[in-house]
Amino acid sequence: MTHNLWGTPQEEKPLSPSIQKMLTKILGKNTRQVPRIPAAKVQLSPVRLKGEHLDALAQIVGTKYVTWDHEQRLRRARGKSYPDLLDFRTTAQIDAPDAVVAPRDEEEILALLQYCSRMRIAVVTFGGGTSVVGGITPKSGEMQAVISVDMCRFDGIEDVDQVSGLVTLGAGLSGPAAEMLLREHGLQLGHFPQSFPYASIGGFAATRSSGQNSAGYGRFDEMVRALTLVTPQGIMRVGGGAPASAAGPDLRQLVLGSEGIFGIITKVRLRVHPIPQTKRYEAFSFPTFKAGVAAVRAVTQHGTGPTVIRLSDEVESAVNLTSTDKIGQTSKNEGGCLCLTMFEGTYEHAESRHRETRDLLLKMGGTSQGEGPVRKWEQGRFGAPVLRDALLDAGAICETLETATDWANALHLRQAVVEALGKNLGTPALIMCHVSHVYPTGCSLYFTVVAGQSDNPHDQWWKAKEATCSAITAAGGTISHHHGVGTDHRPYMGTEVGDLGIKMVAAVKEALDPAGIMNPGKLI
Amino acid sequence: MTHNLWGTPQEEKPLSPSIQKMLTKILGKNTRQVPRIPAAKVQLSPVRLKGEHLDALAQIVGTKYVTWDHEQRLRRARGKSYPDLLDFRTTAQIDAPDAVVAPRDEEEILALLQYCSRMRIAVVTFGGGTSVVGGITPKSGEMQAVISVDMCRFDGIEDVDQVSGLVTLGAGLSGPAAEMLLREHGLQLGHFPQSFPYASIGGFAATRSSGQNSAGYGRFDEMVRALTLVTPQGIMRVGGGAPASAAGPDLRQLVLGSEGIFGIITKVRLRVHPIPQTKRYEAFSFPTFKAGVAAVRAVTQHGTGPTVIRLSDEVESAVNLTSTDKIGQTSKNEGGCLCLTMFEGTYEHAESRHRETRDLLLKMGGTSQGEGPVRKWEQGRFGAPVLRDALLDAGAICETLETATDWANALHLRQAVVEALGKNLGTPALIMCHVSHVYPTGCSLYFTVVAGQSDNPHDQWWKAKEATCSAITAAGGTISHHHGVGTDHRPYMGTEVGDLGIKMVAAVKEALDPAGIMNPGKLI
Repeated sequence: MTHNLWGTPQEEKPLSPSIQKMLTKILGKNTRQVPRIPAAKVQLSPVRLKGEHLDALAQIVGTKYVTWDHEQRLRRARGKSYPDLLDFRTTAQIDAPDAVVAPRDEEEILALLQYCSRMRIAVVTFGGGTSVVGGITPKSGEMQAVISVDMCRFDGIEDVDQVSGLVTLGAGLSGPAAEMLLREHGLQLGHFPQSFPYASIGGFAATRSSGQNSAGYGRFDEMVRALTLVTPQGIMRVGGGAPASAAGPDLRQLVLGSEGIFGIITKVRLRVHPIPQTKRYEAFSFPTFKAGVAAVRAVTQHGTGPTVIRLSDEVESAVNLTSTDKIGQTSKNEGGCLCLTMFEGTYEHAESRHRETRDLLLKMGGTSQGEGPVRKWEQGRFGAPVLRDALLDAGAICETLETATDWANALHLRQAVVEALGKNLGTPALIMCHVSHVYPTGCSLYFTVVAGQSDNPHDQWWKAKEATCSAITAAGGTISHHHGVGTDHRPYMGTEVGDLGIKMVAAVKEALDPAGIMNPGKLI
Repeated sequence: MTHNLWGTPQEEKPLSPSIQKMLTKILGKNTRQVPRIPAAKVQLSPVRLKGEHLDALAQIVGTKYVTWDHEQRLRRARGKSYPDLLDFRTTAQIDAPDAVVAPRDEEEILALLQYCSRMRIAVVTFGGGTSVVGGITPKSGEMQAVISVDMCRFDGIEDVDQVSGLVTLGAGLSGPAAEMLLREHGLQLGHFPQSFPYASIGGFAATRSSGQNSAGYGRFDEMVRALTLVTPQGIMRVGGGAPASAAGPDLRQLVLGSEGIFGIITKVRLRVHPIPQTKRYEAFSFPTFKAGVAAVRAVTQHGTGPTVIRLSDEVESAVNLTSTDKIGQTSKNEGGCLCLTMFEGTYEHAESRHRETRDLLLKMGGTSQGEGPVRKWEQGRFGAPVLRDALLDAGAICETLETATDWANALHLRQAVVEALGKNLGTPALIMCHVSHVYPTGCSLYFTVVAGQSDNPHDQWWKAKEATCSAITAAGGTISHHHGVGTDHRPYMGTEVGDLGIKMVAAVKEALDPAGIMNPGKLI
């Protein structure tokens, strides 16, 4: 990925006329444009590591795998949140990791972490670099410097067990690389978050990622049988040979979501599936978001079994109707809320799940919109983040945030977030919402906001973001459903897990990382 | 429950002629009989708490709720494993808790734990008293005494959310009491382990219980949305308002399975379901266990959706065929392995899941045995443990143990356990096995052993148990699928989670229970 874009310049495309029309409406007379700064012209923080440190790192991983090259540091300096991308356009000097190292195996990582513990050098793990919550910002905390440990060489597949449906994947594999390796065995993982093209297996685990097929295949944390974690105190395998166990607490669930503060995940043993025989698609329209939520809830609680089920609110549905580029949806039916369903499996399985789901959605007030909108969504689903770069060029804010709550609280929480964003941006805003992850007891709510930038866009965004986070916690939502905590949501973790919860996590960190080198300033 | 029986004397029934015939065959000339000792004649360890301590406890919970009465201590001195029950027939002096207290609310528990921390008094939490792994043995460790905290007053239902399908239940509620409260709201939990009649909501959570309907409703740990935990450091709510979250590690999964070593679970917020419209039943017979395992695996991996699916091996199937009392199964088909299926939900849902499952089981070599065996199993399923008391009277060992592993390893693991038990008991043994919990990647294996007692039955059992536990870990199984760790499996936790895993759990314990009073000598 390019440092200041989602993806690469090759993926870029101009804004469609309909989006431009929408933008003109939102931005009004505001024609602020903040140009991109080419990589070579970005000022980075000076390298704080001395020659002896760089030599020592090279001794551990080999000279070829240590670098303090400008572009390499630049690419690992920020994730892909709106403020991250804004930083590259507006900040005079970007704090970057002092060096980038790419170890080969667990033993090299252990040696790195032990050296860094002695030398008080902070470590940030780098997978795909797609964090949107400040998860890879190179904070050194109380350490003298910070290195980025790039996991790209952990790219293998091991121990394929076709009978049990288990494989072990290297933490550095990107989503597509992992699926390509699995395909050779007739298998798939089925984990398709929007970050899929770039994000890594290790990152999915470290942040409790959730993909768009989660109704069928579960969240990433539910797919993980075991992990290998290298901590400054040693190498450990977390999770064992059994699909379930009563042998004490489930320590996997401590490492999942630990965002690099205990150690580095190097391998993940995962549940996989045969490539499905067939896929079936159908979209439905509901008169209101409330009616749609009730219908999606019924589907989930009855267990009718869709692989994908999504529901856009009135605003998002309307935008999608006029903008086929935006998320790729169209509909015959103007107005209302669009609900997309998809079914995978054997022919019989997909057919029976489709029929049962369809019957229930129609009974709950839905109107069929045919296959088209779902197929278009599927084709375009990884393209949406690319549009953000063009929107930023045009002087717009474009950002997403997400939460989750009980079904009974979903409409209240949505209202609270829409109000907090609307009141605190200070510019006209388009605020869209959808439900994309469902559970028997509740659902996620995903918000996309497009607005005009003020003259102080950083302050503008953080004011709105903080008000929204406070509104989310006050309205009973979780601070993140699948983006994670990073630096951005850290102030809300006390509210989320309580003082004793923080104490529990801190105690584990102290036990595994006594020097405090692992990703300081993140999570807790 | 009576101290030295499963259940109450009213539940007892004589051994059927077929079981007596089987026993004669197993026991041979061995006619050793170890009589029961009535409660009043059991010698208990002397009470070590002084008057001032008992007064202080009474000040916290009220005089009525502190006792050191012989029978009350006796009932909380052991769980319900075979060695526990043997203890009551053979051990000269039983170590019992020095007092039993029954607090009313979280504040009283906090005061108790703070007092006990200061006075160095160990605490064992008592729910239903059904542990079969030494989970409630009153070990005082380095403390001067030990009290049993009985959770019977935590018996309420709160915050019923019909929309989201969530309720909060008191930790002291037994399985039937919980289901009765839920029934008033048209709801059910669907958690039916064999300990259901006596075990408690808090115990289910503390030990990662799994019920016989786990294929449909999941393990108990999967039903838990949130818990209230009182630790010596304070009261905490673990788990929040969302069905899923990426806000750091999932701390619920640290408390689930913690077996009382961090604190006392007082309330559990749980996913519940509407009472199903219908149930459908069908049994199948497979020529071999191998063929049956392949079929059950196919059902699980295809997600055809049974609520219950169980498979007995050849020995268990044969015993069940000749002994309708034993587990309540009969079959038209002599020989082979019996597979039971049950389907719950709406009429359409149960019918489609039944049809899909049935088609697959028939395709995989099964022969339908009709509804009868499943209905009989359902009627008799909580009765089996009662038979153990009569078997002990007759001088037999009767015990169960369980593990879980990948599908690819299931047959190998079963063989390893059967061999370890068979070789190490020193008496002829009947060893039965079934699969009762299934997952996409693997299954549980549950073993029932009936054998003759030697002259030193404690040593005889522990030799066989230790050999079996070693065989389980060597063969890649987990040391417990749903019974838990307690004292019995504690020696195997290092193998299960590794030194760093033990260190993680110990760090959390140190943070929440710095005096080390909570259930010493258990889990780690």
